[in-house]
Amino acid sequence: MQYDINNYWQNRRTIRKYSDLEVSDSLLETIIEKASHAPTTGNMQLYSVIITRDADKRKALAPAHFNQPAATGAPLLLTFCADFNRFCHWCDISDADHGYDNFQSFMTAIIDTVIFTQQFVTIAELEGLGCCYLGTTTYNAPTIAEVLQLPQRVIPVCTISVGVPADDGTISDRLPAKAILHHETYHIPSDSEVAEYYAYKESLPESAGFIAENGKKTLAQVFTDVRYTRKNNEYFSQLYHDFIENHGFPFPKQ
Amino acid sequence: MQYDINNYWQNRRTIRKYSDLEVSDSLLETIIEKASHAPTTGNMQLYSVIITRDADKRKALAPAHFNQPAATGAPLLLTFCADFNRFCHWCDISDADHGYDNFQSFMTAIIDTVIFTQQFVTIAELEGLGCCYLGTTTYNAPTIAEVLQLPQRVIPVCTISVGVPADDGTISDRLPAKAILHHETYHIPSDSEVAEYYAYKESLPESAGFIAENGKKTLAQVFTDVRYTRKNNEYFSQLYHDFIENHGFPFPKQ
Repeated sequence: MQYDINNYWQNRRTIRKYSDLEVSDSLLETIIEKASHAPTTGNMQLYSVIITRDADKRKALAPAHFNQPAATGAPLLLTFCADFNRFCHWCDISDADHGYDNFQSFMTAIIDTVIFTQQFVTIAELEGLGCCYLGTTTYNAPTIAEVLQLPQRVIPVCTISVGVPADDGTISDRLPAKAILHHETYHIPSDSEVAEYYAYKESLPESAGFIAENGKKTLAQVFTDVRYTRKNNEYFSQLYHDFIENHGFPFPKQ
Repeated sequence: MQYDINNYWQNRRTIRKYSDLEVSDSLLETIIEKASHAPTTGNMQLYSVIITRDADKRKALAPAHFNQPAATGAPLLLTFCADFNRFCHWCDISDADHGYDNFQSFMTAIIDTVIFTQQFVTIAELEGLGCCYLGTTTYNAPTIAEVLQLPQRVIPVCTISVGVPADDGTISDRLPAKAILHHETYHIPSDSEVAEYYAYKESLPESAGFIAENGKKTLAQVFTDVRYTRKNNEYFSQLYHDFIENHGFPFPKQ
């Protein structure tokens, strides 16, 4: 898949299948260097990225990502972490008394990290690489931190599987822009407006397939009852919350 | 500032001064539509963007952004919000019992929102617009939510000021890539390695200026004692935390 910048944005595809071709360290470093020029709060660059190429390490990470094929089949996993460790270290050797062990600093680092991650993905895709966000990094942070030996103040946020595409992927549907765009104040849509926003998604043949194979009545039920359940959300909320609390960013007391 | 895609990444500049030229709604909608094809968790698109063009509304938002010139001088402010309101509304009209009132769902929506925001910024900059992230959106969320009339489950995350550039901005320095890049496991740098990472930044004439004008001894102290102080971080931690807690995403009990 090689994109032209003029048609890239609407035609980009998530790639979950990768060929055996290698992605060199020098190409990765070039992309990371370019991506590091993305905006960052106060020019603090509160992030790090750990490249996992070693097969044993990839195998150790896979269960944290529920062994999804994009994770097990990729030659590379890149784990992007919110990182106040390096910055505080710099403060320590600069006679500066830092106060970044709190929720606000965590949020700043999270935003910095995701900006950097997305810049990496855009550059990588335009270079012809295939990428897939693994939405599981905030679930099993303790396992990931152990495998990657993350110190205090370093929190895993996003993992990207990367490789040379073995297929063209597919273009995903999206909500109409008017569903996400508000002028001056937030527009609370009516029931019929919401129904209209999701009508195209619900009309897709694959949606009918998801409903049927999961024995559900509506597409929304596939999300609430199968993919993103209350039980899992609450379990992983506690796990990630406690990891952050004990890894350098205690939450305010309630 | 018009970029060529081949030299955009390292040459992009944050723009804080804007001309009087208008940015049309149709251009904004085109950029938002393109940006909405960025990756999103489970294709849920857990974000919204509110465009503030009205002068009185911009004036009402400015104090939340500490009246920084990029906020007061821009013809447009775009507030990007983590949004589970629309998705839950869809669940409600689809007989689906949602369980997204928790920290894990908040994190998912935050990541989705920042990916979308950064995609917007990249596309806008390549279109010749000037953008600046206001790092203050997580500080005064209650004020922002009141002005923009954000309902439950909608949390402000990033604000971008947007306009036609009135100057060329400047290219910011960045840490060397090796400071942020780790192979296989997290490399904890030595003191001298950290000193080396920050040496270029510390050598810049503007760094000496910041130290002098703030009466500090080191550049790191400008961050810890002036720009991002413990006192402010802790105050705004509590404010944002309580806003999130009361706005649809209660935290796990400690």
